[in-house]
Amino acid sequence: MAKRNAFYAQSGGVTAVINASACGVIETARRHRSRIGTLYAGRNGILGALDEELVDTNRESAAAIAALRHTPGGAFGSARYKLKGLEQNRAEYERLIAVFRAHDIGYFFYNGGGDSADTCLKVSQIGATLGYPIVAIHVPKTVDNDLPITDTCPGFGSVAKYVAVSTLEAALDVRSMSRTSTKVFILEVMGRHAGWIAAAAGLAGSKAGDPPHIILFPEIAFDAKACLARVAECVRRYDYCVVVVSEGARYADGRFLADAGTVDAFGHKQLGGVAQVIATMVRDELKLKYHYAIADYLQRSARHIAARVDVEQAYALGKAAVELALKGENAVMPTIVRRSDKPYRWSVGKAALTDVANQEKMMPRNYITRDGFGITAAARRYLAPLIQGEDYPPYRQGLPAYASLKLVAVKKQLKPRA
Amino acid sequence: MAKRNAFYAQSGGVTAVINASACGVIETARRHRSRIGTLYAGRNGILGALDEELVDTNRESAAAIAALRHTPGGAFGSARYKLKGLEQNRAEYERLIAVFRAHDIGYFFYNGGGDSADTCLKVSQIGATLGYPIVAIHVPKTVDNDLPITDTCPGFGSVAKYVAVSTLEAALDVRSMSRTSTKVFILEVMGRHAGWIAAAAGLAGSKAGDPPHIILFPEIAFDAKACLARVAECVRRYDYCVVVVSEGARYADGRFLADAGTVDAFGHKQLGGVAQVIATMVRDELKLKYHYAIADYLQRSARHIAARVDVEQAYALGKAAVELALKGENAVMPTIVRRSDKPYRWSVGKAALTDVANQEKMMPRNYITRDGFGITAAARRYLAPLIQGEDYPPYRQGLPAYASLKLVAVKKQLKPRA
Repeated sequence: MAKRNAFYAQSGGVTAVINASACGVIETARRHRSRIGTLYAGRNGILGALDEELVDTNRESAAAIAALRHTPGGAFGSARYKLKGLEQNRAEYERLIAVFRAHDIGYFFYNGGGDSADTCLKVSQIGATLGYPIVAIHVPKTVDNDLPITDTCPGFGSVAKYVAVSTLEAALDVRSMSRTSTKVFILEVMGRHAGWIAAAAGLAGSKAGDPPHIILFPEIAFDAKACLARVAECVRRYDYCVVVVSEGARYADGRFLADAGTVDAFGHKQLGGVAQVIATMVRDELKLKYHYAIADYLQRSARHIAARVDVEQAYALGKAAVELALKGENAVMPTIVRRSDKPYRWSVGKAALTDVANQEKMMPRNYITRDGFGITAAARRYLAPLIQGEDYPPYRQGLPAYASLKLVAVKKQLKPRA
Repeated sequence: MAKRNAFYAQSGGVTAVINASACGVIETARRHRSRIGTLYAGRNGILGALDEELVDTNRESAAAIAALRHTPGGAFGSARYKLKGLEQNRAEYERLIAVFRAHDIGYFFYNGGGDSADTCLKVSQIGATLGYPIVAIHVPKTVDNDLPITDTCPGFGSVAKYVAVSTLEAALDVRSMSRTSTKVFILEVMGRHAGWIAAAAGLAGSKAGDPPHIILFPEIAFDAKACLARVAECVRRYDYCVVVVSEGARYADGRFLADAGTVDAFGHKQLGGVAQVIATMVRDELKLKYHYAIADYLQRSARHIAARVDVEQAYALGKAAVELALKGENAVMPTIVRRSDKPYRWSVGKAALTDVANQEKMMPRNYITRDGFGITAAARRYLAPLIQGEDYPPYRQGLPAYASLKLVAVKKQLKPRA
């Protein structure tokens, strides 16, 4: 294949390590200049291609690109935007091809989750259906850890570590104060469909009685009576109780706890998260003093406490994506293959995007204890390796010295899209 | 003075570094065994003395005590409990003396905030008023940074660093996603009376336009119209807006925003924090997509991201407390004295507890910009040194290896108090 330019973009919710994958893609492309000309990054995911808003990554210094490895967020901007099917929106694909053709783009690297894998698959099919040859490789990323085939997804290990560390620390605080102050502490974490992140909080404890005492998973129908009975029992036994709740926790009928129909004084649906719903129950039914925290974006941007293994995997998959493209692969995604649990050993494999797109990997039921409130030894075996190692960013004046790119725009060749 | 035993206890809300002060007290007492016999720690603050629930710190290994330096929470338990005046509750003081006498306690080290300084002062007066000679030294601690005389309070620098780092990281996340997703991110931080912690978030930005774009202080009456106009302006200019709000933000009439009279569907006063109140306004008035995080206890227990200078000061003040006692001082508190801003130089001074107890240091008005939404250069000069340096705990299996004490109880000599 003749020398062609490449396109890279970030898609969906960003993570603490998506830029480490960008770093892997860009540094590897730079090592293959005889085959990959300029690597263009799209501003705001696929929108950067559709709007011809491209960044010339060659204008960034080697040091700036290296610093992406320790910088959270999406350095080029990300987007939640799903391409429709070719038959529904042919014009969008023709626009993509026009932009790719205008900039001689022959490689498409797309860094995202399940929806993005679907977009990437569709782009890979342009070659056959619309006669524009392009190699499309998906780089996995999602804090939700719900992509199939790959052992884990870059981004998950770091949010898992953040949640486990935060649970451990806050529990020490609550335990200190329980005699005269807060008895119940509730931490709300992400995970609308699957309880992977909530499960990671379980790593904070190692023996019976250790916090977190209760984990509430989306996979287990919420039973208020059983939950409150367990809270009361913990307070009796330990004088305090730490609850970690997934934002996706729901009742048996499928309603989210966070959408429990409570409205504010103006009749608006209450905005509060699920932590507040649990807190209200603790107050009303048990009359116990509580506090709650909502980690929200802090958890997925906490590069300062990223797991080293996660950073390494994020980088490795970005690198592997470029190498797969250069080997002539198309419509694939590099994956993490687990070789052993303890010591944790992994290598890079690959999966066909047809097997990845629109699939969700749910947490196995045997990762959750029979009572539904904790994690099992099997879950620990899976999760423990993923939070291993620290990979601190450099600091300047007490703050992480995160990358700041120039983001030099590439001159547009086309008229704006309609 | 003949060799006497000592008592140490932790009081009020705990911090990421209160155990570093405990470490300073215990290690220093161990170096003076000829004058200080056994150092007893009270379980749950002053309650440990009143209930004769003492821990023999001699039963802890040197390694365990050293590990306190990197362990958050209160290792001996803390309490929110304020001694009444001698005239109101003489029995309580007589009980204290009975316990101190039973264990030959001649030194009293109390590690807490403003209320605790008052308790410590009262204990120091037992000698004169009730004829029991005791030396009482207060070791300052509070994330609120509101103690007078001392330049800063151990605990504040670490929460300041946590809040600044978290704001920086979450802002990178929101900025990445703003094209198609969240436009406004709100982070709620502690500080019911003073805006020191909220102010620290301002360190995340250094030039105009940098997040956080808006800080809401308890010191500035909340003006919904001005605040929302600023949010809208930021979204217009930067496509996103980061707001940091102190839990103590209030209206001109003194009502907390968090107590804004909203009730849930059951007529209960709404539990939500102030972040949710701001979020509701953003939704209703500006129709913008928002997210919010509530850092709650995570911020004050985040030892994993403690400021090195804060850890050093916490230890130094614990050490100084013992040294002051051995020099014959009484009813004093060691303080941090700032020698220069840049480079930051500090030394240990001392203050009389009569000048410390029941005083609150508010944030100077000239630390807040004229528009009320940001911090000034003067605030930066004061705050910037306090978040300097990192002091990572050791990790084991991906988690901080925090101290776990044996907490061996001392045999009780007295009957339980009535």
